[in-house]
Amino acid sequence: MMARALRLAALGAYTTRPNPMVGCVVARGDEVVGEGWHRRQGGPHAEVIALEAAGARAKGATAYVTLEPCAHTGRTGPCADALVAAGVSRVVAAMRDPFPQVDGAGFDRLRAAGIEVGAGLMEAQARALNVGFLSRIERGRPWVRVKLACSLDGRTALANGDSKWITGAAARADVMHWRARAGAILTGAGTVLADDPSLTVRFDTPREFVPPLRVVLDPGLATVARGKVREGDAPTLYLHAPDAKVPRELAADRAPVAVKGGVFDLDAALALLAQREVNEVHVETGATLAGALLKAGLVDDLLLYVAPVLLGDTARPLFGGLDLTRMAQCLRMEIVETVRVGDDLRLHLRPGAQPAAAA
Amino acid sequence: MMARALRLAALGAYTTRPNPMVGCVVARGDEVVGEGWHRRQGGPHAEVIALEAAGARAKGATAYVTLEPCAHTGRTGPCADALVAAGVSRVVAAMRDPFPQVDGAGFDRLRAAGIEVGAGLMEAQARALNVGFLSRIERGRPWVRVKLACSLDGRTALANGDSKWITGAAARADVMHWRARAGAILTGAGTVLADDPSLTVRFDTPREFVPPLRVVLDPGLATVARGKVREGDAPTLYLHAPDAKVPRELAADRAPVAVKGGVFDLDAALALLAQREVNEVHVETGATLAGALLKAGLVDDLLLYVAPVLLGDTARPLFGGLDLTRMAQCLRMEIVETVRVGDDLRLHLRPGAQPAAAA
Repeated sequence: MMARALRLAALGAYTTRPNPMVGCVVARGDEVVGEGWHRRQGGPHAEVIALEAAGARAKGATAYVTLEPCAHTGRTGPCADALVAAGVSRVVAAMRDPFPQVDGAGFDRLRAAGIEVGAGLMEAQARALNVGFLSRIERGRPWVRVKLACSLDGRTALANGDSKWITGAAARADVMHWRARAGAILTGAGTVLADDPSLTVRFDTPREFVPPLRVVLDPGLATVARGKVREGDAPTLYLHAPDAKVPRELAADRAPVAVKGGVFDLDAALALLAQREVNEVHVETGATLAGALLKAGLVDDLLLYVAPVLLGDTARPLFGGLDLTRMAQCLRMEIVETVRVGDDLRLHLRPGAQPAAAA
Repeated sequence: MMARALRLAALGAYTTRPNPMVGCVVARGDEVVGEGWHRRQGGPHAEVIALEAAGARAKGATAYVTLEPCAHTGRTGPCADALVAAGVSRVVAAMRDPFPQVDGAGFDRLRAAGIEVGAGLMEAQARALNVGFLSRIERGRPWVRVKLACSLDGRTALANGDSKWITGAAARADVMHWRARAGAILTGAGTVLADDPSLTVRFDTPREFVPPLRVVLDPGLATVARGKVREGDAPTLYLHAPDAKVPRELAADRAPVAVKGGVFDLDAALALLAQREVNEVHVETGATLAGALLKAGLVDDLLLYVAPVLLGDTARPLFGGLDLTRMAQCLRMEIVETVRVGDDLRLHLRPGAQPAAAA
């Protein structure tokens, strides 16, 4: 039942944010009598939909929810109250909701009404599902996923910048799904100038999604005048240095971010995005910004599309500025998943246990 | 039956060369009455062992062999005659033997004796098994497999040369199996000077193997004085420029190879190894020689061990000297296999269809 609720929750991957994805299954024994998932912020919560579907059969049933039911009145009434009103006898939640206005209060309200409460069933899967939401609430910064495409020899483009296309159509289509689940797509001014990307979600077959915010790290606001990143329906935000000269009549959203030692304070940039309710940041950029994020320990997921081509030693590198002098310093990752996507390979990596710093 | 014969043949991977691996199953209907495989040059052929095991039951049976039975008297008598003498009624071979002294003569001799002959069953698998032998006989050069170990960002060592160890123990143990099946392990003088490798086969658990010839491409014979590549039981061969000053009392095997435009004629070097009956060359070397082989179109297999670490843009590259200026020139490979080996990834690649040269 919880696995089913988790699958339902995941249906909201492209639309639910900044809210967490939530699924709910109301069951009497082995029989599902109602189910639902939270589709959009402001819309009904998973529990409410599932209870409505169950109707009178919710009485005495068990509700399986992937996250603790809310106890506060936001855009909708508290789900804990709805569960009480429907007369369910038991609620099983995959995890507690760390959101300050919930954080155990939902469980308390259920228990106060005499409902049996269980928590922690498939918690690891539930946490993985909402890794971005949890990062924002618990760490005050979004989950950061860096996507890069490279050759077998780790090159992103030829020395002259030519990179169209290293990876195939299947890999490029696959990237759209990762973009769609992000609250923001982040890039640097260098990539805007060099590649003029639109950074929008483009699906081959229509799918519902909320366009992610496009964020350009542009210290001097040098790229605001033009570019595909300004076009289309998706909003665009420029993050700039505090002393940047802001063009008059700038019709784009912008915000200053502190600069330390001549480079952006990336922690501050991510904190700003968390304040704007961004759960997951999807980064598509060049070696400089990718290297800086990596060196700062801010990369949570590395999504590497490897094309079976060789570009040679003069071609452009994946990560700049790591400046290692001993193998013990190398950045160790863990392979989460290896998948063939068309002719290419998608490696999903996470920072692994780093060796102790050698003397 | 043929699949079984192929599995038997493969048991000779580390010992049979320079002969081809051959397996034989003698069967009466569904019943196997004898089987064998060719273990070592000079030893009995697969057919002879299988017929001996079958004894009188070979009469009227079918012999499945992975390669056309020989018709000439080498170190052992012709297998075709043995099959005739044993009274088998049918011979099914996976493929014709292109070796000039056989090349259809085995089939002819069987047919002349009234034996029904079939050929081509599982031929693709049989050819894959003896890809090195076939390359030597059909192309006059060994099958060339380049093994490299690198980081996720395609780096083989730090800028200062530190590379111990990028990949883990499991990957290094896996390499031993590929070394063991090669007739020669090839490297360059630069690698000998930098890493002082022994280039021997070292198994964790004892296995029978014939030590591969270690070959050092050393234009000026600058490295002959010392090095682990001279130590141990395995033979060592230095290939040098025709004008190299040969040290007096050089106690190592050596041979001159033509130099073209200041670099070794790699075609000539490989032809020389084929003359010495090397079927497969296993290359472990640096970016310069690996890049030169690649650029010359001489790489048949690329075995890339990718460790989940990042070394940054100042670290050493995989392939030098490709000098591409357009994406259309990039060397396109095909992923044959992707395997996790310990914490690392082993990519087995082959040259793929190259795009038409752009104007």
